Amino acid sequence: MAGVFFCSDGLKRRAVIVIKVGIVGATGYTGVELLRFLALHPEAELRVVTSRADAGTPVSALFPNLRKYVDLAFSAPSMDSLSACDVVFFATPNGTAMTMTGELLKAGVKVIDLSADFRIKDVKVWEHWYRMTHACPELLDEAVYGLCEINRAAITKARLVANPGCYPTAVQLGFLPLLRAGVIDPGSLIADCKSGVSGAGRKAELGILHCEVSESFKAYAIGGHRHLPEIKQGLDLVSKTPVGLTFMPHLVPMIRGIQASLYARLSDTRVDLQQLFEDSYRHEPFVDVLPAGQSPETRSVRGSNHCQLAVCRPQGGDTVVVFAVEDNLVKGAAGQAVQNMNLMFGVPETTGLDVVAALP
Amino acid sequence: MAGVFFCSDGLKRRAVIVIKVGIVGATGYTGVELLRFLALHPEAELRVVTSRADAGTPVSALFPNLRKYVDLAFSAPSMDSLSACDVVFFATPNGTAMTMTGELLKAGVKVIDLSADFRIKDVKVWEHWYRMTHACPELLDEAVYGLCEINRAAITKARLVANPGCYPTAVQLGFLPLLRAGVIDPGSLIADCKSGVSGAGRKAELGILHCEVSESFKAYAIGGHRHLPEIKQGLDLVSKTPVGLTFMPHLVPMIRGIQASLYARLSDTRVDLQQLFEDSYRHEPFVDVLPAGQSPETRSVRGSNHCQLAVCRPQGGDTVVVFAVEDNLVKGAAGQAVQNMNLMFGVPETTGLDVVAALP
Amino acid sequence: MAGVFFCSDGLKRRAVIVIKVGIVGATGYTGVELLRFLALHPEAELRVVTSRADAGTPVSALFPNLRKYVDLAFSAPSMDSLSACDVVFFATPNGTAMTMTGELLKAGVKVIDLSADFRIKDVKVWEHWYRMTHACPELLDEAVYGLCEINRAAITKARLVANPGCYPTAVQLGFLPLLRAGVIDPGSLIADCKSGVSGAGRKAELGILHCEVSESFKAYAIGGHRHLPEIKQGLDLVSKTPVGLTFMPHLVPMIRGIQASLYARLSDTRVDLQQLFEDSYRHEPFVDVLPAGQSPETRSVRGSNHCQLAVCRPQGGDTVVVFAVEDNLVKGAAGQAVQNMNLMFGVPETTGLDVVAALP
Amino acid sequence: MAGVFFCSDGLKRRAVIVIKVGIVGATGYTGVELLRFLALHPEAELRVVTSRADAGTPVSALFPNLRKYVDLAFSAPSMDSLSACDVVFFATPNGTAMTMTGELLKAGVKVIDLSADFRIKDVKVWEHWYRMTHACPELLDEAVYGLCEINRAAITKARLVANPGCYPTAVQLGFLPLLRAGVIDPGSLIADCKSGVSGAGRKAELGILHCEVSESFKAYAIGGHRHLPEIKQGLDLVSKTPVGLTFMPHLVPMIRGIQASLYARLSDTRVDLQQLFEDSYRHEPFVDVLPAGQSPETRSVRGSNHCQLAVCRPQGGDTVVVFAVEDNLVKGAAGQAVQNMNLMFGVPETTGLDVVAALP
Repeated sequence: MAGVFFCSDGLKRRAVIVIKVGIVGATGYTGVELLRFLALHPEAELRVVTSRADAGTPVSALFPNLRKYVDLAFSAPSMDSLSACDVVFFATPNGTAMTMTGELLKAGVKVIDLSADFRIKDVKVWEHWYRMTHACPELLDEAVYGLCEINRAAITKARLVANPGCYPTAVQLGFLPLLRAGVIDPGSLIADCKSGVSGAGRKAELGILHCEVSESFKAYAIGGHRHLPEIKQGLDLVSKTPVGLTFMPHLVPMIRGIQASLYARLSDTRVDLQQLFEDSYRHEPFVDVLPAGQSPETRSVRGSNHCQLAVCRPQGGDTVVVFAVEDNLVKGAAGQAVQNMNLMFGVPETTGLDVVAALP
Repeated sequence: MAGVFFCSDGLKRRAVIVIKVGIVGATGYTGVELLRFLALHPEAELRVVTSRADAGTPVSALFPNLRKYVDLAFSAPSMDSLSACDVVFFATPNGTAMTMTGELLKAGVKVIDLSADFRIKDVKVWEHWYRMTHACPELLDEAVYGLCEINRAAITKARLVANPGCYPTAVQLGFLPLLRAGVIDPGSLIADCKSGVSGAGRKAELGILHCEVSESFKAYAIGGHRHLPEIKQGLDLVSKTPVGLTFMPHLVPMIRGIQASLYARLSDTRVDLQQLFEDSYRHEPFVDVLPAGQSPETRSVRGSNHCQLAVCRPQGGDTVVVFAVEDNLVKGAAGQAVQNMNLMFGVPETTGLDVVAALP
Repeated sequence: MAGVFFCSDGLKRRAVIVIKVGIVGATGYTGVELLRFLALHPEAELRVVTSRADAGTPVSALFPNLRKYVDLAFSAPSMDSLSACDVVFFATPNGTAMTMTGELLKAGVKVIDLSADFRIKDVKVWEHWYRMTHACPELLDEAVYGLCEINRAAITKARLVANPGCYPTAVQLGFLPLLRAGVIDPGSLIADCKSGVSGAGRKAELGILHCEVSESFKAYAIGGHRHLPEIKQGLDLVSKTPVGLTFMPHLVPMIRGIQASLYARLSDTRVDLQQLFEDSYRHEPFVDVLPAGQSPETRSVRGSNHCQLAVCRPQGGDTVVVFAVEDNLVKGAAGQAVQNMNLMFGVPETTGLDVVAALP
Repeated sequence: MAGVFFCSDGLKRRAVIVIKVGIVGATGYTGVELLRFLALHPEAELRVVTSRADAGTPVSALFPNLRKYVDLAFSAPSMDSLSACDVVFFATPNGTAMTMTGELLKAGVKVIDLSADFRIKDVKVWEHWYRMTHACPELLDEAVYGLCEINRAAITKARLVANPGCYPTAVQLGFLPLLRAGVIDPGSLIADCKSGVSGAGRKAELGILHCEVSESFKAYAIGGHRHLPEIKQGLDLVSKTPVGLTFMPHLVPMIRGIQASLYARLSDTRVDLQQLFEDSYRHEPFVDVLPAGQSPETRSVRGSNHCQLAVCRPQGGDTVVVFAVEDNLVKGAAGQAVQNMNLMFGVPETTGLDVVAALP
């Protein structure tokens, strides 16, 4: 288990837990983000950083931003080294975490999966969208969906957390107050979402070359994006009737950031939308409702774990529009994963996450 | 009037019209685009290029891309020189064209206004949105709205053309086939539109600095954008009942391009949407419907006068999504203006506009 | 041979040559640029566009910017179809053109190679830098180095043209006036060059992903870039003593454009540098010397075949600095290739190349 | 004076100094960077943030990235509030700090000036380049040039620190090891430097609009940049003979980052350059020499206070090339200013500066 010692923090004394951390598949963009946050996390200690392809290479040779901060080299994934950790993060492509999670849990290691393996409760839906046979459907029930603002209590007790997708985090945080309050027609929701290119990951593909995406804008995955069932699952949980959702992702010529413009028809036009949103997130450290009339920009949360929201009713009509922005690699991935780790290990939720977006 | 001579074009003989052109306010981005197209237009001759602030400066000193192509210097606007032209383009801020157009028309000069002065038929609506008193409301009736694909016949005979806004061009071309066919509910249209930064013009403002817009994405003008009444006016003309439209513009960190994702609820789900769109634009030289399943990218039309469209029905539901892309400075401004000029002077509509987007 | 007919061009009559064109390897960025220029070239006709991997695919499916302009599909390369062309362009990786050129020449087809196979006269130097055995060293003597401004006469008579590299075009055009005039010390030339990412080509590699190059700047190939021997070969031809050259390429987070800042020590500080440069390029259609005090920007020539130069002497010292900008895909590749074709077939040198850079 | 209390830091006990901080002119990019670092600095407390134009506006309204981190509003600058601080940072245009510094020093307040007012020792040189009369030349002698790696001891005792310019930091850190070791000819140094656009500041000017700088590259200030005398002053201090320096700045289409490629002729080609650089900076927390053969990228230090260097000798010739990268707003401005503050107040030099660059 995690090492414990005490230190004084002014007058308060609190057990400092040194959490031994492993990361599987740390050569992608969510992996290097995990490294950025964990390298400076005062209560975490990086023990194992795996990459089959780059085993033996110093982490800082691949990611020179980590020089002076991470001394480890990548190692081939092995149950020996991983099972000596308190928690293992999977920053792997879909289909990997599900093959190792069972054994890690048996070894007493907690697991936070940043891939999609444990996000969908209905294994048939998962297998339909991800075109694989699930390797351990028996763990789907236990897995806690790690949207901290919604599942905080369950996460605190979880052994296995399914870290939400980037789009699902923004879309759910934006729609949930309206659905919970029952003030919109759940039948025709529209989520017009835009993502920076890092959402596509770090892999050698023509479609995400600089010269292919820069100075251009388009919708993509117009036949259906895998985050659709994840979002629908989350919204259905709080909606009286199953939601009808059109989810359309777009690619923005920038590195980081997701912006979602969410449209719904108001069933109750007397509701004070601004008040509803402010009340919903008043106590959240990482969700922030802007004053009325402002529109959130992705740069305001670039590199930070914050999600900024705004709500408006154009021309006073019966359509409500919610705007949500987040950094897809942070609140949409690695930052939320660290937030989950903090909850799972009883350290203050914001530990290691006090990063201010660098502007400009 | 325009000079006329004859030349042989293979076997065909056609009168070549040398159109004497003036441009008022050519130091903005739509102005320099006009210069790019007109400098190489085989039947146009640049005579006067005005700028009060830069009078005396060679055009190519301000715009070195025009070295070897434009030898003129900017001159202060004067009725003397402008009235010697066959056509005058206004590439000015809103509120200028309306003060000079009457006199030019009287002098027998045709006018193509790229600003918003003559786009809205209802002067009260115009004055509400543009916060000015209109200087010549008596010309609003005569002004022809220059969306070539819709008003071709009227443009051919027009003395005064109101060149459409950039967003209105894309949104109308996308929604019109659906409204005309009567297959959507006109009451809840959503136009989620994204524009490159050049749409904001060339002016010294903090909000469009490179460091303010690059690597970020946001909705803007969320309280109401001036293109809303222009779009609504155009859609209402073909809709049985007035449309209900939510129009939300967003700023993309790129120079050129507009992408519109248009959402509507189908009232008739049996319609063959692909066929409907292909039929609607089969004979249009500058509107192009992509094969089913493709999503248009702004870069495919960057620098060119084409608008590319696609249509789909996500998950086979009752929501139809239309995608439209154009270059906001070309089909959304200067290119369409030249297209209008061609129509007004009886030269082939594509003359001077055969430009292929440079990819990448 | 090329088809010939006559048309009247005002009063002049000139034989219009319809040049039948083949392109080998047209799925890269120089390939699609060739297509852009040749599709609108009034005296060229695209006959064959090859790609082994994409055979059967319509060209416009891969490059939607060419919809309505190119109706061909990619075909597998075959000597049958290529030998029916008047000229074949190779837009292939290094090492391909040299395996097919001999046979094409025998079939009476002219060849313009945009790769490096025929650029270096000394086969040992070539084999050292390109790490291959040359397949037809016997053609190296015949091959004409296609820097039009230097070798115009030879190009006019050539069967085989080695189209220059992108950096070598800019660096040679910048240094040559100084070396010819004998006013600099040739022993310590420095070429600090910067290129947009398209210079690296269209291939699935991590290093040129948007997220790897955007918002960053670096020198690359610091151990030695393959354009070094090509530049040195060109400069040595006009220098009294072999040049000592430090060539350092850098990667700019933009798609297109090369800027070179060239430094040399003046051996003669009385020379009128501005005059020297203006005199050197006064009659060149595609090389343009800016007025004293101006600094050329890559965007001024983006998409066009122009090279803009400027020269200065900082603080009046003994160091001369020359600035050169070009579009690496145009004057640095496809545009210059078309310029070479025009020379080889006796059509006016600027035919099909009258493109004004779109600004912004 | 600064408040002092004690806390335990594991076994060590150290006085925690709460430094009361004022910032004059905090609405520019160096200002908001100061706010980012100081908001999370454990031993600093923001007291006064001035802006004449935005007095009364909450800081987080202008800079939404600071929501939840900075509660202050901008106030008009007043000696009353500023003189209650322990240190005042000037993030103002040149010419402001020199009018207030004298009074602040008299009030016992330390001053760190991020503008150029106190960087040049020779007032005539300053007045020539900055085209102003200096308001307090009598302070120039006392002012310590705040390049921490060079002047650490003096900074520790300073009341007034002139924070170096962005280019001068990179160029001096790169050239100094060579000049100190006496292994290069100081007579013909070339500094080809490239900067992101934020170096031009946050002001409404056409030349730094997104559409003017994006997708382009150019040299600028080719007639002479103000950082030239500052660099020369620094290099002359360690060179046996005055240096001859050609300094050429270029604008990169990115927000942050400076890269310098520095060229010199080796007078001693036997020196082990890699060893020389590693030895020079072995103990520096914020200067990092990359392994031989690597080239530093600006993104590796984006948002962080690190400067990364590399050195090479192309083709084993007698030219040495040094590469330096830094974030112009951090090590080139606000980060170095905080580093200076730490030194001046005796807190560990890296306090508040442990930020890892977010990659990608």
